[in-house]
Amino acid sequence: MAGLSMLWSARSIAVVGASGREGSLGRLPVEYLKRYGYSGRILPINPTATEICGLPAYPSLAAAGPVDLALIMVGADKAVAAVAECAAHGVPVAIVGASGFAEAGAPELQEQLLAARGGTRLLGPNCIGAANLTSGLVASFSPWFAGAATTLRADLFPKPAVPGPATVQGWHTGTRTPAGVALVSQSGALGFGAASLAVDRGLPLGWVVTTGNEADVTALEVLTELAAEPGCVGLLGYVESLRDGPALRRLAARGKPVALLVAGSSAAGRRAAASHTGALAGDDRVVDAALRQLGITRVADVDDLLDAGEAFAAAVRKSSPRPGRPRVADYAEPRPAGPAGAEGRAEPRRVGPARVVVVTTSGGSGILAADAVEAAGLVLAELAPGTRDTLGEIVPVFGSTENPIDVTATVMRDRTLVERCLRAVDGDPGVDAIVLCFCVLTGDDVTGIVAALGQVTKPVVVARTGAEHLAPAATTMLRGLGVASFPTPARAVRALAGALRTPANPGTGADTPATPGAGHPGAGAEAAGPANDVTPGAGGVEPVTDEWRLKEALRAAGVPVPRGHFLDSPADFDFERAVLKAVAPGLVHKTEAGGVILNVTKDTVAEAYRKIADIGRVWAEEQVDGGVEVLVGIAPSPLGRVLTIGAGGTLAELLDDVAIRLLPADPAAMLEELKIKKLFDGYRGKPALDTAALLRAVEALVGLTAGWPADVAVELNPVLIREHGVVVLDAAAVREV
Amino acid sequence: MAGLSMLWSARSIAVVGASGREGSLGRLPVEYLKRYGYSGRILPINPTATEICGLPAYPSLAAAGPVDLALIMVGADKAVAAVAECAAHGVPVAIVGASGFAEAGAPELQEQLLAARGGTRLLGPNCIGAANLTSGLVASFSPWFAGAATTLRADLFPKPAVPGPATVQGWHTGTRTPAGVALVSQSGALGFGAASLAVDRGLPLGWVVTTGNEADVTALEVLTELAAEPGCVGLLGYVESLRDGPALRRLAARGKPVALLVAGSSAAGRRAAASHTGALAGDDRVVDAALRQLGITRVADVDDLLDAGEAFAAAVRKSSPRPGRPRVADYAEPRPAGPAGAEGRAEPRRVGPARVVVVTTSGGSGILAADAVEAAGLVLAELAPGTRDTLGEIVPVFGSTENPIDVTATVMRDRTLVERCLRAVDGDPGVDAIVLCFCVLTGDDVTGIVAALGQVTKPVVVARTGAEHLAPAATTMLRGLGVASFPTPARAVRALAGALRTPANPGTGADTPATPGAGHPGAGAEAAGPANDVTPGAGGVEPVTDEWRLKEALRAAGVPVPRGHFLDSPADFDFERAVLKAVAPGLVHKTEAGGVILNVTKDTVAEAYRKIADIGRVWAEEQVDGGVEVLVGIAPSPLGRVLTIGAGGTLAELLDDVAIRLLPADPAAMLEELKIKKLFDGYRGKPALDTAALLRAVEALVGLTAGWPADVAVELNPVLIREHGVVVLDAAAVREV
Repeated sequence: MAGLSMLWSARSIAVVGASGREGSLGRLPVEYLKRYGYSGRILPINPTATEICGLPAYPSLAAAGPVDLALIMVGADKAVAAVAECAAHGVPVAIVGASGFAEAGAPELQEQLLAARGGTRLLGPNCIGAANLTSGLVASFSPWFAGAATTLRADLFPKPAVPGPATVQGWHTGTRTPAGVALVSQSGALGFGAASLAVDRGLPLGWVVTTGNEADVTALEVLTELAAEPGCVGLLGYVESLRDGPALRRLAARGKPVALLVAGSSAAGRRAAASHTGALAGDDRVVDAALRQLGITRVADVDDLLDAGEAFAAAVRKSSPRPGRPRVADYAEPRPAGPAGAEGRAEPRRVGPARVVVVTTSGGSGILAADAVEAAGLVLAELAPGTRDTLGEIVPVFGSTENPIDVTATVMRDRTLVERCLRAVDGDPGVDAIVLCFCVLTGDDVTGIVAALGQVTKPVVVARTGAEHLAPAATTMLRGLGVASFPTPARAVRALAGALRTPANPGTGADTPATPGAGHPGAGAEAAGPANDVTPGAGGVEPVTDEWRLKEALRAAGVPVPRGHFLDSPADFDFERAVLKAVAPGLVHKTEAGGVILNVTKDTVAEAYRKIADIGRVWAEEQVDGGVEVLVGIAPSPLGRVLTIGAGGTLAELLDDVAIRLLPADPAAMLEELKIKKLFDGYRGKPALDTAALLRAVEALVGLTAGWPADVAVELNPVLIREHGVVVLDAAAVREV
Repeated sequence: MAGLSMLWSARSIAVVGASGREGSLGRLPVEYLKRYGYSGRILPINPTATEICGLPAYPSLAAAGPVDLALIMVGADKAVAAVAECAAHGVPVAIVGASGFAEAGAPELQEQLLAARGGTRLLGPNCIGAANLTSGLVASFSPWFAGAATTLRADLFPKPAVPGPATVQGWHTGTRTPAGVALVSQSGALGFGAASLAVDRGLPLGWVVTTGNEADVTALEVLTELAAEPGCVGLLGYVESLRDGPALRRLAARGKPVALLVAGSSAAGRRAAASHTGALAGDDRVVDAALRQLGITRVADVDDLLDAGEAFAAAVRKSSPRPGRPRVADYAEPRPAGPAGAEGRAEPRRVGPARVVVVTTSGGSGILAADAVEAAGLVLAELAPGTRDTLGEIVPVFGSTENPIDVTATVMRDRTLVERCLRAVDGDPGVDAIVLCFCVLTGDDVTGIVAALGQVTKPVVVARTGAEHLAPAATTMLRGLGVASFPTPARAVRALAGALRTPANPGTGADTPATPGAGHPGAGAEAAGPANDVTPGAGGVEPVTDEWRLKEALRAAGVPVPRGHFLDSPADFDFERAVLKAVAPGLVHKTEAGGVILNVTKDTVAEAYRKIADIGRVWAEEQVDGGVEVLVGIAPSPLGRVLTIGAGGTLAELLDDVAIRLLPADPAAMLEELKIKKLFDGYRGKPALDTAALLRAVEALVGLTAGWPADVAVELNPVLIREHGVVVLDAAAVREV
């Protein structure tokens, strides 16, 4: 896998199919490498030319000498041979830009390409290559690089122009590598389009890689590899098919902040993605749940992706090792209180959403920021009395010392007031992060603000709703301090939320399978813990699919089911009140076939028996009523096995009230998400229900199915949860195709 | 009300408290009016100075002669006298910029200000004034206007630089007034901050007005007045308290597109807004419902507000009178099929969401656009076979002729292909609007695209995900054609959706009260129709609040209730099975007090009677079971009476499944929104339920309560809806404080 880093650190690049002809695609990479000052060897490969763009050209890779990276600029028909040549020459990584493979209905050509690669890793086909923007390694033919005004903005990567206080580190993370974010995109055009927007807005973007058809190398793999670069402070991705759960966990396990724009959030988009990539997209709710669970920020638009990048870059630049400073990773997803986790830190991790204070010079911006805080799943901090007292001395009477704190524009006149305000909220232990809002920030204000922000130790973002030209130096000066600024309060808050949500337990064995059903994991285990992980198919256990057999298996595993047995005649009936169900090969929809009769007693069993026996064998089980109907399911998904808990029975379809997680998961946290949780807690004076029994049943089901083949879906619906205990009324298992 | 237009068309402006001192606030408006070329009379008012900024100063308004608009730049303590002077001098409109009134805990000072205004309309206090950006009328002290690089971008308002095809009108709507959008903001700082961003991005912004504390003039009133300006093609508003339903209807009735950013969408934001303005914000769901109902676009952020403005401006510029061209107003909110409405047009209005085709040069952008189409409540168009055939000849094999249509970047090489693609989808009767996506649009591509887009007759927006500098002329040239362009697909689609959603029936009597309960209105009536309007309190009818009296009234109005009467002794019991309820003054929570007993029969009535009689009078009514529980409510809100229909009984709290509308409303359309609609239609083989009877009951309730005082809330919950008929099991009415 180490070879992939050649995409951004190759010391020699061969351009296979290079051309000297003006306007030809094969000329572009050679021009770009020269124009942007790539310091390695540029090796144009052309069977006939001896010189291209002033560089010596070679007839073959063999003639060119050692090659770290090959950019193959020939058409689809000649690409297989070119890849084979790379493999023969021992090139670590080759990029195939041509289209005309799987995306064009020619999967067999793509298979040939893959077969030819040998030990060479293959980026593409149907991609636009990769670039390291800090070194000028532009292994791409994107028209972005041809723009007369295009620069890679090396100026974004030096030390800060504005010397900040000693505790602020600035642009470097302590290594020689510039600190920046990486962008990896399955779509080539969109990737370089987004990169051009990123550089224009001044985002320190270090790496761009596009993966196209992903015949071999995937976006997740590249992101994971980039996360290992010491200078990479955050990862941005555009993906169309998110289908590899273990790869996603590996990425999260790097512990660096990640934001993903996953296309196909709508049914229409999924259809388009399927026709585009030929791959069926997974259920978007599973994608959503998995990303949240792993601490990966999901964004809805290219703008949001780049905003997240700004916050990632700023958060790290700001990460000075001042003692007592909360780590951003401390504020992952809201989760119920639990043990401190495996980090062995002295203080227990504070749980729940991050507590944000909004400080604003404009009441309107403050309200919009407060709205955005709630929408982003964060909460407004409650200020300590001492903080309020301090603010009371500073904020004018027509402002507000309640959060959002409206300091009004008048405090800008005295920079010590801004400083004192920020120091007060920064020192309040109930505050995790700060949003500072301005409208129409002018040049005169900037020095004071920079001085004040330089003292802040907590994560802070700025919203400046006004034209940049009114304070042209502000953004750069704030960047120098490690503070990201955004044009609107909502964008600032969303970006902050993304920066606070990072993979919760970096370095722990996020993808290490462990003993199934090993009891109830602590809260910290939810993001990456192994407690109830499953290894699909590992045991090769044959799953049971008949309802009655499944129930027997559930009973044996410790999941309560009603007492039941087959009746050979009505005389075998030994229940007070029972349900009779027909059992016959291939009979799935029993109810629709008239194969289920409720409320059968000794008086009515003869007739009921006759009816059911017409359809199949007669299974009888004790009828259980009362309680609340829940569904519990385990199903395969492209990202791995998914646990679902939600409203069951007739409410299932109406309420659509489910919590979804990749396994391993914390079922107790899942219950907290459900609307029907109200019923569990004792609704309208009714007694509370036995959620502990429900959780035991869930764990037992996870354990029971752990060794089953990966394609089996099992659903218990309804499970009745009652004041004491639970009971599974219906259960089904199917192999999903 | 006509006087308000002086805010943007005054021919003489007095600056009360003008000062020549550098750095004083009183100097700014005088400087600004001079700097931006205001051609009317600038009248500095100062008791001692004779000349300010080179202009003659006057000791009083009387000395200055006729004044169309007074900008009062004195402190709160002197503002009342200044307003009184305006009133005495007959100044139509005065702006008070000072803070220190209701927002600072001094409502009495604000009352004095209001009392002093006489016939003068008052903008503010605590606002930053108003500006007409096309005439240089800057009656404001915003620091935006002081920026060295600030211009009002008069260049945005001339005729198009690029001559388009003859059918494209360009920047003028046929009058001498430049066509632009207006921005009205309750927050002064946010308003001018947003305006500075708007001008910087090239939005043709003609008017900015900030309303502050709104002691007299409200943002809704100003928006309505601006909508009457012939050159105003769309309205943008930021509001913190949306409390005036009739004013909102008057604005919608102007028929021009409106987008509102309503602060306080979150509980936290509402609390902040309440402390900011002193006004309690209404239920955000009512705001949401009312805006949707009136065809007003609600946006979530300042960026979205300005994006909506771009689409409004472009849609009108594009509105050439080509025959057969769909009007944007034809695509309002999705609603069920119904009569064509009152416009008397020959063709019935097509109902349902607008059908969008996405044409993209990048697969990724196409998927993101498709996702955004669904998220915005629009649908992807199904293409006609002929359209597909045409596209099949153009689109390369590695593209897609399915919507989103991926024409791939290769078609850019031949501009006739782009033209033919767009002509094909533009001519497809199943397509209502077009989204065209590019990544990295370069200068070479622009001429071809402009030529192609110039022929398009349907609403079209462009997403260009790439740096502006790669095709610097594109945005201007597209603007000249009346095509708005955005940096991301999602923003383009959201803005298009906003432009397609306009007040549905401009010019009809949206706020004309009519006979209550006049039957079931047609679909067209929903947005603004008068069918079941109510005139709260008009009749002065005393509402009934006892459950039994309310039920008697409902029965009399034609709403089915169970048969019931008081029992003077158990011997009066003449039911098969009944509910006994205690009736006593002040007894509201009957169930909690043990005042409700179910399933009472002749056998058990003696004991039940005894228990209930201990609490109050004994009301007995026939017990009715079965059916689905619904709630129907009518409640006061700041925007007017609100009708709510939703899941009732125990499901009410769990499902939170309600449809909400301002009255008048179309209850049939409301049912379509409900999840429990599935139960009405016959769920899992059960018979369909009697929705016609439910709708009759709703109309009867609306009629019954029409004359009640405006502060009465009535809730029928549950109403049982059954296979045949409905019956109201419980009913309550309270006067809300």
